[in-house]
Amino acid sequence: MYDLIIIGGGPAAVSAGIYASRKKLKTLLINRNWGGQMSYASLIENYPGFDSILGMDLSNKFVSHLKKNTLDIKEDLDIKEIKIEKKGKTIKVRSEKGDFKAKVVIIATGRVPKKLNISNEEKFIGKGISYCATCDAPLFRDKEVVVVGGSNAGLEIALELSTYVSKIYILVRGPKLKANEYLQEKIKKISKIKVIINALVKEFKGDKFIEGLIYQDKISNKMKEIDVQGIFVAIGSSANFSLVKNVVKLNRQGEIKIDSKNRTSQPNIFAAGDVTDISHKQIVIAAGEGAKAALNAYDYIKKIKIRKEIL
Amino acid sequence: MYDLIIIGGGPAAVSAGIYASRKKLKTLLINRNWGGQMSYASLIENYPGFDSILGMDLSNKFVSHLKKNTLDIKEDLDIKEIKIEKKGKTIKVRSEKGDFKAKVVIIATGRVPKKLNISNEEKFIGKGISYCATCDAPLFRDKEVVVVGGSNAGLEIALELSTYVSKIYILVRGPKLKANEYLQEKIKKISKIKVIINALVKEFKGDKFIEGLIYQDKISNKMKEIDVQGIFVAIGSSANFSLVKNVVKLNRQGEIKIDSKNRTSQPNIFAAGDVTDISHKQIVIAAGEGAKAALNAYDYIKKIKIRKEIL
Repeated sequence: MYDLIIIGGGPAAVSAGIYASRKKLKTLLINRNWGGQMSYASLIENYPGFDSILGMDLSNKFVSHLKKNTLDIKEDLDIKEIKIEKKGKTIKVRSEKGDFKAKVVIIATGRVPKKLNISNEEKFIGKGISYCATCDAPLFRDKEVVVVGGSNAGLEIALELSTYVSKIYILVRGPKLKANEYLQEKIKKISKIKVIINALVKEFKGDKFIEGLIYQDKISNKMKEIDVQGIFVAIGSSANFSLVKNVVKLNRQGEIKIDSKNRTSQPNIFAAGDVTDISHKQIVIAAGEGAKAALNAYDYIKKIKIRKEIL
Repeated sequence: MYDLIIIGGGPAAVSAGIYASRKKLKTLLINRNWGGQMSYASLIENYPGFDSILGMDLSNKFVSHLKKNTLDIKEDLDIKEIKIEKKGKTIKVRSEKGDFKAKVVIIATGRVPKKLNISNEEKFIGKGISYCATCDAPLFRDKEVVVVGGSNAGLEIALELSTYVSKIYILVRGPKLKANEYLQEKIKKISKIKVIINALVKEFKGDKFIEGLIYQDKISNKMKEIDVQGIFVAIGSSANFSLVKNVVKLNRQGEIKIDSKNRTSQPNIFAAGDVTDISHKQIVIAAGEGAKAALNAYDYIKKIKIRKEIL
């Protein structure tokens, strides 16, 4: 029986773990992966204290910081179900490798990349289709690739790929790039990157591995084909809420509704970071929220009277 | 005319500055000092990414990170008044060195140490009385000192002082220490530290410099005297709200009331960090809040429709 189970491996979960263990809560942290959205980022320049650091490096610093503290950690573990028991006094977390119980759970499962939902997308995942440039860019050295998506994420992925691949097509659904000016200026300077606007992805081509894709030009309505060996999908992400969709209240975007003390609609479930309805999703915001969730979980467990909201 | 003026120099202000300048807002940051509560801390072990760092070092990293970005900075500057002008469309910030105007202001003025409010306290500030061990500990090498306060802050200050001074008396108003177990265990192991409970500070002794203090034993009601050359006051802090007390709504503790998007009761004034009514005051929480305030100020300035709260 734990005081607290934290689910997740990104900045919110790690920060919650550091704070919970420093408060001497008997804590278990469970996750499938470390790093969350950090591990998809190439260069991070907006986490205060590090003016420029690779996403993977910052993620490793977070994890080694966490592991200096006293708590149990189960990595590489999928959770099947979260169940409220004993009239809400205990929470059971069912996993592939047995059940764990706690007084309180913090959900910090972050976000997952959106898929294009084209018929054979699943088949080509890991065989030419990727959602993570930082993970897979080196596999496409000297190859031609498509990046789907013209927002910040798409352009960041294209920049990251540009040091490896020989040619990049950025396919944008709308009439222009949505990314910020700074990124657009950077992209323009790289001759191997070509932006194609008004392009609707229709079909993936290939036998075992990706060999190309077909898109529709929304102006002429003509179908066009590009031969590429890699496709990076960067069309956004959605809250990773599936574990708790029947347990706590979500907003229309599928984000967990929380109050200023990281409480969800279920009294002994707290949530933090990108899986919640917080207004902006950033590493330092998620880390702050994780700390706050752990401290509020501590107050709840120790029955410290939570100061009445006066707003 | 600026888009944004940020007032403060701690983690919330610095983080807001980094985010605002990356969003290309024309930004001015004004403060009296850098670091905020960070600069009072000795060793920081709970800012994710740095498993152990001196408060001053982390503060310096924040400031140098900020200064890599494009914004105007006015250091060492006191602000006299904040005034809403042009039917709420402009804010005028009046300082010793002229006035500045902006569309939006972020208040991130943090907290200030509480005073004991004993008659001659002011007179001895900098002459034996200190509110910041990190700043002043080296001045008391081989001397005897009192620390007033038995919470975490008091014990942390005593630990920090213990490498310099020859003797430390911790004076606690109540019947026991309030600090966490971990700190209490550390304190017990240091023979030069003596804890005195039920002690009410009554009077400071000294001519030009502190020479001792008189406290009342609350059990026997007797007055007792200790000869010391230094007194460190660590009885908590209060929100540094004086600039905005007539401009935005405060709660009963004098903290600025904010919503989940860091908005105050005045539409073009946002607030972040320890000066607000956020539930826990920590560096990473303040840094996250600063980032969030800057991003929400950006949305406000650019008239980006702020998604309706669904909670």
